[in-house]
Amino acid sequence: MHVYIEDIGKHEGEEVTIKGWLHNRRSSGKIHFLILRDGTGFIQAVVSRAAVGDDLFKLADHLSQETSVIVIGTARADKRAPTGFEIDVKGFQVVGESHDYPITPKEHGIDYLLDRRHLWIRTERQQAILRVRHEIINAVRDFFNGRGFILADTPIFTPAACEGTTTLFPAQYFEETTAYLTQSGQLYNEANAMALGRVYCFGPTFRAEKSKTRRHLTEFWMVEPEMAYADLNDVMELAEDLVVEIVARVLDRRRRELAVLERDITRLESVKKPFPRLSYDEAVQLLQARGLPIEWGGDFGGPDETMLSEQHDRPLMVHRYPAAVKAFYMKPDPERADVALGVDVLAPEGYGEIIGGGERLADLDLLLARIKEQGLPQAAFEWYLDLRRYGTVPHGGFGMGIERVVAWICRLEHVRETIPYPRMLYRLYP
Amino acid sequence: MHVYIEDIGKHEGEEVTIKGWLHNRRSSGKIHFLILRDGTGFIQAVVSRAAVGDDLFKLADHLSQETSVIVIGTARADKRAPTGFEIDVKGFQVVGESHDYPITPKEHGIDYLLDRRHLWIRTERQQAILRVRHEIINAVRDFFNGRGFILADTPIFTPAACEGTTTLFPAQYFEETTAYLTQSGQLYNEANAMALGRVYCFGPTFRAEKSKTRRHLTEFWMVEPEMAYADLNDVMELAEDLVVEIVARVLDRRRRELAVLERDITRLESVKKPFPRLSYDEAVQLLQARGLPIEWGGDFGGPDETMLSEQHDRPLMVHRYPAAVKAFYMKPDPERADVALGVDVLAPEGYGEIIGGGERLADLDLLLARIKEQGLPQAAFEWYLDLRRYGTVPHGGFGMGIERVVAWICRLEHVRETIPYPRMLYRLYP
Repeated sequence: MHVYIEDIGKHEGEEVTIKGWLHNRRSSGKIHFLILRDGTGFIQAVVSRAAVGDDLFKLADHLSQETSVIVIGTARADKRAPTGFEIDVKGFQVVGESHDYPITPKEHGIDYLLDRRHLWIRTERQQAILRVRHEIINAVRDFFNGRGFILADTPIFTPAACEGTTTLFPAQYFEETTAYLTQSGQLYNEANAMALGRVYCFGPTFRAEKSKTRRHLTEFWMVEPEMAYADLNDVMELAEDLVVEIVARVLDRRRRELAVLERDITRLESVKKPFPRLSYDEAVQLLQARGLPIEWGGDFGGPDETMLSEQHDRPLMVHRYPAAVKAFYMKPDPERADVALGVDVLAPEGYGEIIGGGERLADLDLLLARIKEQGLPQAAFEWYLDLRRYGTVPHGGFGMGIERVVAWICRLEHVRETIPYPRMLYRLYP
Repeated sequence: MHVYIEDIGKHEGEEVTIKGWLHNRRSSGKIHFLILRDGTGFIQAVVSRAAVGDDLFKLADHLSQETSVIVIGTARADKRAPTGFEIDVKGFQVVGESHDYPITPKEHGIDYLLDRRHLWIRTERQQAILRVRHEIINAVRDFFNGRGFILADTPIFTPAACEGTTTLFPAQYFEETTAYLTQSGQLYNEANAMALGRVYCFGPTFRAEKSKTRRHLTEFWMVEPEMAYADLNDVMELAEDLVVEIVARVLDRRRRELAVLERDITRLESVKKPFPRLSYDEAVQLLQARGLPIEWGGDFGGPDETMLSEQHDRPLMVHRYPAAVKAFYMKPDPERADVALGVDVLAPEGYGEIIGGGERLADLDLLLARIKEQGLPQAAFEWYLDLRRYGTVPHGGFGMGIERVVAWICRLEHVRETIPYPRMLYRLYP
């Protein structure tokens, strides 16, 4: 009976068939130990001459890394094993050979590995990261679905820029047209929220940033919720609840993967409500007191975010940024027009911004004035202005970059390991 | 207390606050009836002079379509109401005005509506379609997650063509490089399946087809599962189970929306296992017997698919197509090399292909020969060939286009209504 390694615990003492690949192998001479993987886990299979006969015993000693094999044997509990089980092999069959597999247990350089990303993902560590990614994405979707949000996909091809064109990728749309790849679904989300109340979009987004930092990909996945009849405080509470839910879910279901990654789980266990809330003003004072060269009015740089997020054991919410550095659609604080009702959530342990959002400018005249101030082409935004012409309501939402969340929760150095096939300034292959 | 219309049944007799928009209005002179919508549903609010006083009573008679309003009143059960409830209004407040709303209850032309898609989605019918879409997408994800598949996102930016370049959209990737927008995640999926066993990707895909049929969008969402250690039969069973699950879930959770769409539910209720399975040979004979001009060896056209899918009360699976018309990566039937182990699932009621897939060619030498035969650049596929060099296994999967499934389940004339912002040959706005 074909059994997946992750389900082996349900088959103790039974004869099972494992269909997988040889991950590693060692031998005591009298017994060969095959470490098998099948995509759901890793397990040790024990091959003795008595059980399999001379020919298979000899063959088992020559199987090379990543050979695909079907193994039949008995599942036996063994407390020393990582999964708690081993297989006593009765027989096996080679499905596909593998010679000179290029990724060996030794260290390889990052470019070497990225060139072989299609094989690199077979390692235990990369599999663990991708499973955590899977869990995070599904936690996000379940969170919004469970709260009555409707998934409404926003377009990838857009006719105009959401926030300037310098970081947009142009695509040739048939002969005569240029389409730009979306940087954010937000403007469309706002229209969708006016129709469906509470919505989210969740798809790939694109930024043509020529930065080579550990936090940037040119293609990344972002979830963006938007709520009609909501203010900045609603947005902050939603963001807080979402992050708490994601971390709890990964801790609940992906302990094994976190262990593979040697993640310090206590740091994740402290991610609980309430998150500290700091105004931009307070944040600037704090940074200045620590000797950082920021002036009021500037956006935070990486070192600023790192410093701020290292102050706390859980994510930090910084709100009310200078209106001048924020997008035209952000609502100014009615009590103080020089700050906008925006919020960023900074992950702890120095990971910096994972969420950005806020309350949108719902007033037609103020929005028109902002579009003019920023020199944006009003014609491109006529449909967006319609949302203020026909039954405008207070509304808000945010965007959360999935790869940054994965990097934080897995505690990775670089976002390039958070997605199966990372796309960067000089990386488009495989 | 703020209550969403879809939850009104839990608040019978209570004072509730509805935050929404005025969808429509009528008056008997003595009583005004406001049809409110809040994104979760529609409800009638009854305004009497005695309950709200002269000023509000007069105002209620002048509220225009899509005015945003907050209404306070008592939830009262009423069997005649579509939701089973009405609101007896105690007071209301206008949040945002709306003058000369461009989409009235009268008929509008399709281009007029598509130009105003950001408002068109506020109608009851479009909301119903988008909710069914939401349900279908989440049914798909729950189906795969529940069976141990791992979501592994495949890239949008790809360096080379999966199946020829004529229908690819090129994007400028920084100064010197051209990236192509993905048509399918399949090749990457195969690599992911060799790492993670059973995987799926689910994202937007792009085809630069200059067709203006009712079944084509340039940007559409596709789910693609891929399984290691699987053959054509496993692929067919998976496809069958998925479609049955989707239809059952929509019938279970979206009855109200199907009623709005006036969908004949009995047609959906007959979508049960097993689906009829027809070989390509048999399908051609059947079409020829009906007088259609197809010859053995040709791909099915729209009329062929329509004819075939109208023969049955449930989806039909056509398998073993001529190898010559299928992609290089399809496995030839070992018993008959002129047909490939592919399968298409055709939706009933004339909707045609919703799924295409099959078993992949796992043998390195045969795959190399196919790449040469089709004149494809081997260098671009080196990483893909690695999957056959290092522990190849039988594997397969399929792709299912979401918009076509939504069109079928909602019984729509055209896929343009199945996605919030459709992209077509001449449609990139809003």
